[in-house]
Amino acid sequence: MSVNGQNGLTSVAPVDAAAAALAREAVDALAKPPGSLGRMEDLAVQLAGIAGVCPPPVPHDPVALVFAADHGVVARGVSRWPREVTAAMVAQLLAGRAACNAIARTVGARVVVTDVGVATPVAPHPDLVSRAVAPGTADMLQGPAMTAHEMARAVQVGVDVARAAVEAGAGVVCVGDMGIGNTTAAAALVAAYTGAGAADVVGRGAASDDATVERKRDVVAQSLRRHPSRDPGAVLANLGGFEHAGMAGAVLACALARVPVVLDGVNADAAALAAAAMWPATRGYMIAGHRSREPGAAAALGHLGLDAVIDLDMRLGEGTGALLAVPVIQAAARVLHDMARLDEVAG
Amino acid sequence: MSVNGQNGLTSVAPVDAAAAALAREAVDALAKPPGSLGRMEDLAVQLAGIAGVCPPPVPHDPVALVFAADHGVVARGVSRWPREVTAAMVAQLLAGRAACNAIARTVGARVVVTDVGVATPVAPHPDLVSRAVAPGTADMLQGPAMTAHEMARAVQVGVDVARAAVEAGAGVVCVGDMGIGNTTAAAALVAAYTGAGAADVVGRGAASDDATVERKRDVVAQSLRRHPSRDPGAVLANLGGFEHAGMAGAVLACALARVPVVLDGVNADAAALAAAAMWPATRGYMIAGHRSREPGAAAALGHLGLDAVIDLDMRLGEGTGALLAVPVIQAAARVLHDMARLDEVAG
Repeated sequence: MSVNGQNGLTSVAPVDAAAAALAREAVDALAKPPGSLGRMEDLAVQLAGIAGVCPPPVPHDPVALVFAADHGVVARGVSRWPREVTAAMVAQLLAGRAACNAIARTVGARVVVTDVGVATPVAPHPDLVSRAVAPGTADMLQGPAMTAHEMARAVQVGVDVARAAVEAGAGVVCVGDMGIGNTTAAAALVAAYTGAGAADVVGRGAASDDATVERKRDVVAQSLRRHPSRDPGAVLANLGGFEHAGMAGAVLACALARVPVVLDGVNADAAALAAAAMWPATRGYMIAGHRSREPGAAAALGHLGLDAVIDLDMRLGEGTGALLAVPVIQAAARVLHDMARLDEVAG
Repeated sequence: MSVNGQNGLTSVAPVDAAAAALAREAVDALAKPPGSLGRMEDLAVQLAGIAGVCPPPVPHDPVALVFAADHGVVARGVSRWPREVTAAMVAQLLAGRAACNAIARTVGARVVVTDVGVATPVAPHPDLVSRAVAPGTADMLQGPAMTAHEMARAVQVGVDVARAAVEAGAGVVCVGDMGIGNTTAAAALVAAYTGAGAADVVGRGAASDDATVERKRDVVAQSLRRHPSRDPGAVLANLGGFEHAGMAGAVLACALARVPVVLDGVNADAAALAAAAMWPATRGYMIAGHRSREPGAAAALGHLGLDAVIDLDMRLGEGTGALLAVPVIQAAARVLHDMARLDEVAG
């Protein structure tokens, strides 16, 4: 499987408008006041469009795909954490002791961690997919963060991992990230794809102090000047991380498989912008799991036209916010299966 | 068991500040950037305070208690639906074909329906608690909706049902409602307990047209003038429904049992105002499951100082919004059990 557009992979089918229209009618006919399930009704309609059938299957066997990688831009002092923390948190994810694991257990989801470019060696583990493209990206202030070839490889990793998850039975895929420094790369991606300014998309990330946030803003502004191309693929290669490319590939694979893909926070949102820019029809398969407190998330979701399911001021990553949305998404499909129609109740 | 304050029932213990403080420390020590779990962190702290232990138990075996009743004020033309729909929807709830059932299945919750005052006869069913105080309340424009004795009986029903649910193993209780006309009663309760004006708390309810909304506003304004007492119990008896009294009793029983009680929409919020007014310490045991689109919900939650977990523009009732919050609440407790500490990861 390749992502270079030569073999049909990039011809994502749009979501099924007919199935979505049927679902809207079905939702309106349920035994409840019209519109009273609010945005769950829109989710039900979207799920029908994604699956191409009404009622849509209840999204079963959720999986969280966590893509981990390191970032050359960390050399610029954009994080309070050393890059070794990426590998340390990957170890916690594999040990089942990260926030992601606790939430995944609650919602009955499997967690798959993919090393798509961690700088520090990570010990093999049954739940780890070891597909590091390189030991971290290059510093985006010195050149492209990834070469075009590296980016394509990272996208392919995401395609492969998501395809494997769907083939193993996942009916819904959450995409999340782990990577010290990645909110800086995400901010640069969001700015480049949306046209927002650096000041509007840079946030505190993993608890940066004021001086660090100031530095992040400068680094993002410089990187946008250093890499003026706004070609969708060039933006991702120049400014992104391996995990952003991997998540974009996962989005692509989900759209191709007609499976809903749930975005976590600002890093997944940035990857979704890349996917939507490269393969526009993927947009219809995306569900914004939550609205991260990071300012870039609002800019990205606004640009994508996505309303978040969960809004709890979270900004942790690892797929945590996406996982919390899974029961809501499942319930949205389930009402179409389980509920009586109004004409059965009120004549 | 009685609710008249003569036997200690009303001496609800406040939530445990020491356990809550321990939980805050524990949350801050987890392997994540400080504050990055957002309002989940506050939920974890509240759950520790409720249970009186840190980490708090993960709220297991959720149950939705749906209190159904009819309303004399329906004679005033405040709903587009005839009162017979209350019994028809109770039948759907018992048949497992209401929105509540679909969402309950998704989150692994049991549904218990209590007839606390439905006007139309409801056939017996294993999941139905038949404790009707009267066949609907009286018209609050003609006199008190409930006598003091009726109100006390309805509160007692709620106490009994919630206590039974907890004794049967529920670690978290959702309270919801079914009752044609009850958003009018809820609006009157919210206005009386918060001091808000009728115009600020009356909404469309179950899809009323403009003329009906106008009528609701008039009815609420009249009812507030007709019943000037702001004594907490008198407000509930004069303006409320049997389901509001039942839900208030359920809140009381949960607080006494130190179990979190999750509020559904504007009707549960109105009942929570009544509970907080009558037994102030119950406030600490309440979690606002969602923020209903009904304007009275915002006024009630603001008065109670509660932030809603879910905000999806829903306004269906039946416990639907409360049930959607359950996985988030469970995950909030679970992170305190499952996650590594920062000092284990980053030294």
